[in-house]
Amino acid sequence: MYKSMRVKSSRKNDMVDITDKVVNFINESPVSEGLLVINVLHTTAAVTINENADPDVKKDIYKELSKLIPAHDNYKHIEGNADAHIKTSLVGTNETIIIKNNRLKLGSWQGIFLCDFDGPRTRTVILKIISD
Amino acid sequence: MYKSMRVKSSRKNDMVDITDKVVNFINESPVSEGLLVINVLHTTAAVTINENADPDVKKDIYKELSKLIPAHDNYKHIEGNADAHIKTSLVGTNETIIIKNNRLKLGSWQGIFLCDFDGPRTRTVILKIISD
Amino acid sequence: MYKSMRVKSSRKNDMVDITDKVVNFINESPVSEGLLVINVLHTTAAVTINENADPDVKKDIYKELSKLIPAHDNYKHIEGNADAHIKTSLVGTNETIIIKNNRLKLGSWQGIFLCDFDGPRTRTVILKIISD
Repeated sequence: MYKSMRVKSSRKNDMVDITDKVVNFINESPVSEGLLVINVLHTTAAVTINENADPDVKKDIYKELSKLIPAHDNYKHIEGNADAHIKTSLVGTNETIIIKNNRLKLGSWQGIFLCDFDGPRTRTVILKIISD
Repeated sequence: MYKSMRVKSSRKNDMVDITDKVVNFINESPVSEGLLVINVLHTTAAVTINENADPDVKKDIYKELSKLIPAHDNYKHIEGNADAHIKTSLVGTNETIIIKNNRLKLGSWQGIFLCDFDGPRTRTVILKIISD
Repeated sequence: MYKSMRVKSSRKNDMVDITDKVVNFINESPVSEGLLVINVLHTTAAVTINENADPDVKKDIYKELSKLIPAHDNYKHIEGNADAHIKTSLVGTNETIIIKNNRLKLGSWQGIFLCDFDGPRTRTVILKIISD
């Protein structure tokens, strides 16, 4: 099973919780044991798994990343978003999660986030289920 | 095949070599060609592949990460472990490794580590084998 | 299907575009729906997905990484390449990409790079296709 979805960010640096959308996709699938793969089809946006209970966690993550990799630092790339490319290679554009008993095996505090580093924009995220 | 295992860390920042445990799981499996997926079910711990010959390598990794992302930096998250969440998104909570001829395809110097950034704690790591 | 390939870097820090080699492997395969997994078998080299249109992007990435993680910083590892090990754990040694309709699902600007942090060297990258 395969799904393509659009995810909207609200600011230059943003983390959008897509856990419910991903869980719905698993629920609609007949696969009980296997893998879910998530790919972001961009070079200035990434995907990560982190806490979605306290919204301050995501703010701490993208604010600290912006301290480490400043928006302007004599980058050569003329489009002005080199910082977003660098953050993308650090966080990564894909995640692979285990499916067991028809459920995504996430820990109690784990949520899945689209990380936009060059928003606000609408991004494409694709999902694929592989059965055991 | 699926396995859940508990891994114990010994300090706030720690990297615990789990290569032997993972290799044992592969050895017990009948799958000769496929993939192994490792997921850590936490938001302040990660998994990485790096050198396990010289124990100084892991110390350099988690010490340098703590220089980049200090324990205290006016974070908003009130639990006091925002640094551990940030490191987790940088290192990542999953790895996918190729299985060939019943063996995990690791390089000569590659080992698999549970990275705890908010220990000492006992963490849950899950493993899944997908056959070709 | 499985393939092992050799990739040559040209300097200490380098990013070598391997997209065409990976796409050729997909084209030779009969698998129309599935996953491609890429593993780098080293502890001082990684793999990342980022822009391959403007060559300045890759330079910005590895130069900024070298600012964050300096070549010398009182590391304990005596081989003098601790910086390369640290960068490897941040960028990661594997990628998992979705295959659909016999094609690798990459975004318009996405390319696949071997990141060498301790070159110039010839590195081993392995590829595996898993069918749905």
